Amino acid sequence: MMDNTTENDEVQFDEEHLSSLIHQGDTLAFREEYLSLHPYDQAQFYEKVEPDIRQVIYQYLSPKELAEIFEALELDDNGYTRFLEEMTPIYAAQMISEMYTDDAVDVLNELDKDQISHFLKLMSNEDAQEIRELLHYEEYTAGSIMTTEYVAIPENSTVRSAMTILRNEAPNAETIYYIFVVDDAEHLAGVISLRDLIIADEDTLIHDIMNDRVVSVKVADDQEDVAQIMKDYNFLAVPVINSKNEMLGIITVDDIIDVIDEEASEDYSKLAGVSDMDTFDKNPFLAAKKRLPWLVILLFLGMITANLVDLFTDTLEKVALLAAFIPLIGGTSGNSGTQALAVAVRGIATGNSEEDNKWALMLREMVTGIIMGVVCGIIALGIVYFWQHTFLLGLLVGVAICCSIVVATLAGAVIPLVMHRMNIDPAVASGPFITTLNDITSILIYLGIATAFINHLM
Amino acid sequence: MMDNTTENDEVQFDEEHLSSLIHQGDTLAFREEYLSLHPYDQAQFYEKVEPDIRQVIYQYLSPKELAEIFEALELDDNGYTRFLEEMTPIYAAQMISEMYTDDAVDVLNELDKDQISHFLKLMSNEDAQEIRELLHYEEYTAGSIMTTEYVAIPENSTVRSAMTILRNEAPNAETIYYIFVVDDAEHLAGVISLRDLIIADEDTLIHDIMNDRVVSVKVADDQEDVAQIMKDYNFLAVPVINSKNEMLGIITVDDIIDVIDEEASEDYSKLAGVSDMDTFDKNPFLAAKKRLPWLVILLFLGMITANLVDLFTDTLEKVALLAAFIPLIGGTSGNSGTQALAVAVRGIATGNSEEDNKWALMLREMVTGIIMGVVCGIIALGIVYFWQHTFLLGLLVGVAICCSIVVATLAGAVIPLVMHRMNIDPAVASGPFITTLNDITSILIYLGIATAFINHLM
Repeated sequence: MMDNTTENDEVQFDEEHLSSLIHQGDTLAFREEYLSLHPYDQAQFYEKVEPDIRQVIYQYLSPKELAEIFEALELDDNGYTRFLEEMTPIYAAQMISEMYTDDAVDVLNELDKDQISHFLKLMSNEDAQEIRELLHYEEYTAGSIMTTEYVAIPENSTVRSAMTILRNEAPNAETIYYIFVVDDAEHLAGVISLRDLIIADEDTLIHDIMNDRVVSVKVADDQEDVAQIMKDYNFLAVPVINSKNEMLGIITVDDIIDVIDEEASEDYSKLAGVSDMDTFDKNPFLAAKKRLPWLVILLFLGMITANLVDLFTDTLEKVALLAAFIPLIGGTSGNSGTQALAVAVRGIATGNSEEDNKWALMLREMVTGIIMGVVCGIIALGIVYFWQHTFLLGLLVGVAICCSIVVATLAGAVIPLVMHRMNIDPAVASGPFITTLNDITSILIYLGIATAFINHLM
Repeated sequence: MMDNTTENDEVQFDEEHLSSLIHQGDTLAFREEYLSLHPYDQAQFYEKVEPDIRQVIYQYLSPKELAEIFEALELDDNGYTRFLEEMTPIYAAQMISEMYTDDAVDVLNELDKDQISHFLKLMSNEDAQEIRELLHYEEYTAGSIMTTEYVAIPENSTVRSAMTILRNEAPNAETIYYIFVVDDAEHLAGVISLRDLIIADEDTLIHDIMNDRVVSVKVADDQEDVAQIMKDYNFLAVPVINSKNEMLGIITVDDIIDVIDEEASEDYSKLAGVSDMDTFDKNPFLAAKKRLPWLVILLFLGMITANLVDLFTDTLEKVALLAAFIPLIGGTSGNSGTQALAVAVRGIATGNSEEDNKWALMLREMVTGIIMGVVCGIIALGIVYFWQHTFLLGLLVGVAICCSIVVATLAGAVIPLVMHRMNIDPAVASGPFITTLNDITSILIYLGIATAFINHLM
């Protein structure tokens, strides 16, 4: 992608040239070339090359320089471990302690407890303590994605002294564009943007120009809620506080972009019945491994459908034409269920659902289902009547489609909401699963009605 | 959501109090209270209240103050028009000209040509010209989401003079955290962050400290590609250039978050067969209207399936048990097709697909399909054999499932990629559509084989 989007040729990194500098053992030339790249490009190179070249990189770069590259790596589960294993433990520990705390925690979270405490022992007490504090926050909470490298100033500072603090902190802070103001007891009292700071008079008190209506998130808040706030308010960073209103860290917009992307991917995977969509597998065996679990579970569920149809063999033997509409009715029911599911899951994700009012939601989805059911039912009746010239069969198919759509719509909307409420992992309510359930109910409805009225149909 | 996530009670806006200030006609108190809110909260109030209250707001606020609220509104299609119609044309035109150009263009794009030129005539020539330039960029390109309010400085400035320019531009620029450096011919030459600027010595030349490896995007680039770059590099803003490397504008991270969200929503809607998922409808008629088009199209397609099954009535009359496996085979084929589709669409969206190598992709998906087909086929054979004690029927179902999975996987992966290559709107290849297609092929395969070997099955 870089080809068409970067401005000039120098921007792309020349992989061969970098490798050749390493092969020549030209430390200085390599460092100059490599370190002038954007960390993202450095990370691309680092990830791509053979392990023996990375061994040289560990010689040429300091743990601090490598830390910046590690922050730019975006790896899947257990992606960091294989790199850490290439390094000496002391080098790895130093590198981790040089990373922004949130990124360090991401890396460490891949390891088991013994390995983590081994690395923490190799760090300075202070660094280890900071990391240890973040490690115990639960996944998917604000605490798990926040970083502790932020700029905080006392509210009675002047703009001049604030700028001095800022210049000192700039090399280490993850962002200096929002400066958080704390009172004597370290409570979050306000926020001021660097934009406002640089246009303010140098002798002004921070207290007088800060925004005291600061929006913050609690450390245990769901990361999706944090993402929603930052998206709504267009924040570049948001402060994280504990229940005593003490400031613990900040969450920056780049982490939030990852959260938004991740959550959307997750919802999408659920709808499709793929266990993990983060990587586009080049290896067909890995791809099959990710997709097979759902396919096999659904195959077993599908056998239930087959069993059900089998119960109606007598009916089907009498009017074989009935079988022709089984896929149609199952399919339509599956489609309407998937639509309802998608809307509900998206509603949960974007916080737009009114799940507080479960009954209103159920009523609304039922009405939606009835409208769609009646429309589709009448259309189906019409088609079948004109095609087969039997009004009764048309009526049967129409009624079955209508009922199936109502049931499927209700199930698709309500099941994920109920699961969300009960804190059950909504992955269980994934698209194909609900589709198969709807398959079963729709066939029961269709063949049930058909059997009841079989004498009229023959 | 605000309840649990904002720090103290004052942060939430008190809707009743604000309304009562308006009813009392207390201009000053209302302005003080309202304008101290975050623009997002101002927008929430503005959008929520009755039209007569908004009429008072137009009296109390200047067009410039309302412009900031309009920038924070996030509305669907034609959402702005009803508000513009409430204002006097001159007030509306002034407000639009005070907005950031990218947001002004979003609002104007809702109107027809006559209305746009009417508003542009009411603005200053300069403002109208800036907007006119952005209006002609095609939707979904970098040009359509960029803004022209950025800070550019000549490369031979000193840090001191750059800071002076910055302080002057700060109130109007959309971001001042990246300063773009241009040469004498207005070509983009480099970039420097405010962070680097404030820690630099005041007499340093910008040229000596700027980063000349600036990553930029072309004005006609797809907005998805821009989003990918900003996500990878963690940029807060990226410069937009024309083919002559002249700087035209910038794209900021808040716009990119909207793009990422929008594109993910779009892919998701496609997979579910819902026309538009942006809003969670409270009105069941609106909800039905959004979902019915697909349901009805798929109903007609399903009739093709019914027609096909009807062709095999003779076969089904002979062995009614065959009908029992129709939903199972159709369902499994649909599930594997949806999985392949989801992976392919996500691959296109995140730029991870190797669509340049179509044959490699087809081969890989075919191998994936064969692995999954063989596994599922053997499982199906086993279940059917133990359940019905007929090896031949089990073999038939197993082979049909295996073939269906291979075909469905290939179709699910290849169809969207081919469409993407041919620039056909991939909405046509949405989930339910491909599922229904796979339904048809799988039934043809199953009943075709069954008919060929009917004598052995009886």
